[in-house]
Amino acid sequence: MGRRYDTVTLLSDYGLVDEFVGVMKAVVRDIAPHAAIVDLTHDIAPYDVRAGALCLGRSVAYLPEGVVVAVVDPGVGTDRRAIAVEVADGAGVFVGPDNGLLAPAVALVGGAQRAVALTNEEYQLERLGPTFDGRDVFAPAAAHLCNGVDLAELGDAVDSDSLLPAAVPLPQASNGSVRGEVLWVDRFGNCQLNIGPAELDEIAAGEPAMRVSAGDGAPRSVQRAVGFADLGAGAIGLVTDSYGMLALVCDRRSAAAELGIDAGDEVVLEVIPDGQNAQATATTTPVEIRAEPRR
Amino acid sequence: MGRRYDTVTLLSDYGLVDEFVGVMKAVVRDIAPHAAIVDLTHDIAPYDVRAGALCLGRSVAYLPEGVVVAVVDPGVGTDRRAIAVEVADGAGVFVGPDNGLLAPAVALVGGAQRAVALTNEEYQLERLGPTFDGRDVFAPAAAHLCNGVDLAELGDAVDSDSLLPAAVPLPQASNGSVRGEVLWVDRFGNCQLNIGPAELDEIAAGEPAMRVSAGDGAPRSVQRAVGFADLGAGAIGLVTDSYGMLALVCDRRSAAAELGIDAGDEVVLEVIPDGQNAQATATTTPVEIRAEPRR
Amino acid sequence: MGRRYDTVTLLSDYGLVDEFVGVMKAVVRDIAPHAAIVDLTHDIAPYDVRAGALCLGRSVAYLPEGVVVAVVDPGVGTDRRAIAVEVADGAGVFVGPDNGLLAPAVALVGGAQRAVALTNEEYQLERLGPTFDGRDVFAPAAAHLCNGVDLAELGDAVDSDSLLPAAVPLPQASNGSVRGEVLWVDRFGNCQLNIGPAELDEIAAGEPAMRVSAGDGAPRSVQRAVGFADLGAGAIGLVTDSYGMLALVCDRRSAAAELGIDAGDEVVLEVIPDGQNAQATATTTPVEIRAEPRR
Repeated sequence: MGRRYDTVTLLSDYGLVDEFVGVMKAVVRDIAPHAAIVDLTHDIAPYDVRAGALCLGRSVAYLPEGVVVAVVDPGVGTDRRAIAVEVADGAGVFVGPDNGLLAPAVALVGGAQRAVALTNEEYQLERLGPTFDGRDVFAPAAAHLCNGVDLAELGDAVDSDSLLPAAVPLPQASNGSVRGEVLWVDRFGNCQLNIGPAELDEIAAGEPAMRVSAGDGAPRSVQRAVGFADLGAGAIGLVTDSYGMLALVCDRRSAAAELGIDAGDEVVLEVIPDGQNAQATATTTPVEIRAEPRR
Repeated sequence: MGRRYDTVTLLSDYGLVDEFVGVMKAVVRDIAPHAAIVDLTHDIAPYDVRAGALCLGRSVAYLPEGVVVAVVDPGVGTDRRAIAVEVADGAGVFVGPDNGLLAPAVALVGGAQRAVALTNEEYQLERLGPTFDGRDVFAPAAAHLCNGVDLAELGDAVDSDSLLPAAVPLPQASNGSVRGEVLWVDRFGNCQLNIGPAELDEIAAGEPAMRVSAGDGAPRSVQRAVGFADLGAGAIGLVTDSYGMLALVCDRRSAAAELGIDAGDEVVLEVIPDGQNAQATATTTPVEIRAEPRR
Repeated sequence: MGRRYDTVTLLSDYGLVDEFVGVMKAVVRDIAPHAAIVDLTHDIAPYDVRAGALCLGRSVAYLPEGVVVAVVDPGVGTDRRAIAVEVADGAGVFVGPDNGLLAPAVALVGGAQRAVALTNEEYQLERLGPTFDGRDVFAPAAAHLCNGVDLAELGDAVDSDSLLPAAVPLPQASNGSVRGEVLWVDRFGNCQLNIGPAELDEIAAGEPAMRVSAGDGAPRSVQRAVGFADLGAGAIGLVTDSYGMLALVCDRRSAAAELGIDAGDEVVLEVIPDGQNAQATATTTPVEIRAEPRR
């Protein structure tokens, strides 16, 4: 027998309209009634493995000990592996498809210590069709782990080095500017970048304002700020968000809508040339600064 | 005292924007704090009893022992009965309106063994208005059942045969074709049909491709396939889904959008006449096969 | 040590697409694993403190003993206070921003008995940025309360009278009419008013029909009714809803869409002048009664 767990954390792109998530929970409850379930989110955009991986990475430091099941799985029904990965001396196990979804979270908690492919059908439900591994493979695996079934029982050991890594985009700094991308646009329109405060300080330490370019719009001025409320009504801010990354934000409205950007889009932050500072740090409205109308 | 239960599974058309579902859970928690709740879904389309009944039917084999509360209830406030139905030698009780919503699930687990109308106001909350039986009637009934209150205490016994059945559409096979309908379109655009693989094999055993007609569009060719990934970029597939029914699917995009169909729409599957096979089994794109533009 | 709690009820405007709510739950689970969580709703419109306050007020009578965390917090990161408010001789504690969000619920259960500002960082998570107090301040406070940490430990005592009240709109009655507003439009399009049945009876006791004016549309006739099903296909009804307030409703369709109104809009209910009663109480269709086309 292995260690027992009493929490199963779930993330998926199943949405909450269909009963997919509910059935997964029913399966966990049926096999391991003592386990509590924490829903991280089920509204990852369909098939968006990268968004799911980033979401899990943002959250992992806050998760309780236990099993994490993540399902964003466009390759379900193919020969992509279903895996379980033990981390942190057994404090946690990640369960999901081997498509990079789990990789950033696993790395952030110290890397994989043991991993198996979920090949042992004794710990799976009988499949009526090949398209719902969340119900038939991943949820049962999590529940059996909660019951103390050892990872090694769930299937063939696999080399941790063979697990599919995630493609994590890195920002590129050059003279006076840094080029990065939008990792995440949240409900409020805040745009998290793949750029940290330290990287910005290297090119623009102490600058109260900068320029941001995104898409085909004209460059916009952005204020370095601590919180949303430091920004005027027309201003775009650059704050350190609650995950320690830089984010483009507005006060009580959507920076994503203001800038016309979405997750995955490229952005360039640059120092404002001498002599343009006074103008650029003024609070501006979209009308004043836009070169031409945008959608 | 009756049997005690420790799981309440919920399904409704209340949505998650208003607090309806949260208040139902608060009521259950208040009366039966030991009971865990499994949310199947709360996004059944408003008033769509049939969609709720099908969803519950798809899920029932996976539910843990306990009480199931289902609320899609356009007749709330009328004299439609509120009922509780015991099944499977007391392993489960279904609670909800007597409008056919519970019928397919009850039938799938062996039929009703005892049933009552929820007429005993001792096990209800005081109604401030007649429009929220989920809170005032169904949730309290479920919680009291969890606490060991016997079904018979909740109200007057009713004859199981008097419960409203569900209208389950049956497919019709004729020479070389089968006419059915779309039961369910899921988040990914997969279209579950009311046709099983056996019914298709009767008219087209071994055929690698068929034709599907839906709406006023021209017939389209569909490939028999095992999983999504067996399909080319422009192809529509016919797979056995995770519930054992046939579904029209595409690989990583919506078959419902591709075919312009929705739940309840009629579809006809037919054998491709001799001599047209080579053409029909080719991977086709919408442009090649469509007679005229569609929305 | 204070009293222990075992339920945390949550309400927020975080939505369920991002992982905000999931991370809050993970934090509670990590600190107080014995606590169960009840989600009231997380789909309060972004920044809509009033809608959140009304929702919490509607629900509070049904909540189990325990801690309630409510987060609709446009002022996060400013010097608005984060507070915890004890009510009902310690049966409950409300946790959230001091922006009026908690006020109606607190008042409905008898008012604040003790209150603190959440200033003790020992019971908070380390902030990486100032924008996610749900995770860093409110969820940990709730979890520590569940573990028996006394309210007084969480921060500096504050005078209950200094807490920000909510602006609750009151209806105004005059000769033969009452002017109020829409408090809430639910998923089904039912429009709860800030007018109770008693207020209407003062101007129109026993009248089977009235007129309603809203927006710039022509006055429409409305039937006093008990339930949705008492209404004809084209009729608008005025019922006592499940919270004991008047609501404008239709049978199986949206009264909000029919009348073109939304939460916050003004409505006037008025007695129909003598001689117009027969016509006004007739079931009318939108086409018959509308003066001109509306969107």
